[in-house]
Amino acid sequence: MNRLLKLLPIQFPIIQAGMVYVSGGKLAAASAEAGILGVIGAGSMKPEVLDQQIKKALTLTSHPERLAVNVPLLYEKTSEQIEVALRNGIKIFITSAGSPKTWTKILKEKGCVVMHVTSSPELAAKCEDAGVDAVIAEGFEAGGHNGRDEITTMVLIPQVVVAVKIPVIAAGGIGDGKGIAAALALGASGVQLGTRYLATQESSAHPAFKKLIVEAKSDATMLMMKKIVPVRLVKNPFFEEVKKLEDQNATKEELEALLGKGRARAGMLNGDLVSGELEAGQIAALVKDLPTVSELTQRLLQEYEIAVSTLPKKL
Amino acid sequence: MNRLLKLLPIQFPIIQAGMVYVSGGKLAAASAEAGILGVIGAGSMKPEVLDQQIKKALTLTSHPERLAVNVPLLYEKTSEQIEVALRNGIKIFITSAGSPKTWTKILKEKGCVVMHVTSSPELAAKCEDAGVDAVIAEGFEAGGHNGRDEITTMVLIPQVVVAVKIPVIAAGGIGDGKGIAAALALGASGVQLGTRYLATQESSAHPAFKKLIVEAKSDATMLMMKKIVPVRLVKNPFFEEVKKLEDQNATKEELEALLGKGRARAGMLNGDLVSGELEAGQIAALVKDLPTVSELTQRLLQEYEIAVSTLPKKL
Repeated sequence: MNRLLKLLPIQFPIIQAGMVYVSGGKLAAASAEAGILGVIGAGSMKPEVLDQQIKKALTLTSHPERLAVNVPLLYEKTSEQIEVALRNGIKIFITSAGSPKTWTKILKEKGCVVMHVTSSPELAAKCEDAGVDAVIAEGFEAGGHNGRDEITTMVLIPQVVVAVKIPVIAAGGIGDGKGIAAALALGASGVQLGTRYLATQESSAHPAFKKLIVEAKSDATMLMMKKIVPVRLVKNPFFEEVKKLEDQNATKEELEALLGKGRARAGMLNGDLVSGELEAGQIAALVKDLPTVSELTQRLLQEYEIAVSTLPKKL
Repeated sequence: MNRLLKLLPIQFPIIQAGMVYVSGGKLAAASAEAGILGVIGAGSMKPEVLDQQIKKALTLTSHPERLAVNVPLLYEKTSEQIEVALRNGIKIFITSAGSPKTWTKILKEKGCVVMHVTSSPELAAKCEDAGVDAVIAEGFEAGGHNGRDEITTMVLIPQVVVAVKIPVIAAGGIGDGKGIAAALALGASGVQLGTRYLATQESSAHPAFKKLIVEAKSDATMLMMKKIVPVRLVKNPFFEEVKKLEDQNATKEELEALLGKGRARAGMLNGDLVSGELEAGQIAALVKDLPTVSELTQRLLQEYEIAVSTLPKKL
């Protein structure tokens, strides 16, 4: 039996990624209904908003056990976010952007499943030492925040699989059933898909942002802001401003000043495609439609079966 | 039947990549003997050196039909290189770093097979229009010269497979049979491996450079020189000099001055690990030994079979 299906109460080894401004209660509930892990991205949420979104998800799914919360550990409100999630009965946590040591023990003592996001085999080993149940190994091609070593999914997964004994979930650059087959061939037990689930009916990304993803070409994104925290952005006028500053060798402070506050909300939630910050993965180029989460998930399962059945048994 | 095996007179759909200073006649002949395509990397060779290396390969293999030459199209000696290869009976050409229009028609009229290296689906379509027989789609994680859009193998292959009807060969980030299975799951008909064949007994890389590859960690390489031509380098003191200049926002001219002449030869062929330029792919981190080409190829075939046989048929 698939190791991720032993660990999580889901039907298929697929995680819908937590994404700021994109994965609220509606998307997570639709994912839970579709048999995969539905993750609310707490990164962009004040504790009271997270509370609302979890409660919303609970009203929309008969599978509350398939709901999870993604908590970046570098915000000041992390503790409150985790408290809110626990109070609402959330039992599955994905932690990221911080030390896996900080929260894993506390959450495990409360009977939760903990997975930590890693961008290198070395950090993956530290996650295992910290007691997490699985690692999500995320490659350079992924949207949003990213590792400094620029290791791609193709190269990262086989290394992480060797570095740890716990299940490895592949993330970054996976947008269809072929990609899932590739990730499992590399040794992953499951996959996490972000951008592909962003482009669904139920995500809370603004319709204009979803349209931009559907129309994205192969060169639509680039990893930027390496002086602050590397983040993969969709190319838009705001991106061009960032690029101009970076080409001029701007300081961290100048970049932070340009970034300011509220750009991600403006872009991804409110649809300001000009001055908003738009985060997405390279796989946007492969996204051509906006299905429902259920339709998408069924399609992924079928594509996977075709990909595996057509692979030659010998070279 | 595998589409690459229809096109090329080889036993297994694997290409040993042409690599400057690394893939001479000895490596190419060993690859041909092992049943895969043995490629002499002409990029670093004067026409008379290429002539010697092809003649050497011809004495070392009973399968001259499995020998190919990789010709970057941006050197002044391209025409002479191609003439030398044709005169020695080479019938398979891999062209790169230039327009596929320049040479494809001429080579096809002489009965040759032509494959062009691409880093984007858009260029892949242009290659097909120019009449090439196959494209080698090379991702961001690959060693040496690289595309500007930083598209990874995981994301590139499924797009190129849709963009063209001709066979697609995946390159970049493939170092074992799992990686080959992943590439084929993504839709590739075959694979090209560079760094993995660099680390063999028969490659002409200096022993000290080979040792460095075997000891490489996950963060051992980085894509640099984006102002000139992007190239993935192994981190060494020369790399640190490049990085320092780039962090200071150096001009193209300053970078070219630092690069100077002969650095790649000094590093890769002569083993100057301090001031030499060392090119390798991210997959170096997965390379742990220096087998013969025959041992390596047999191992890849076995690993592939295991990877495919253990893939679940359904999710």
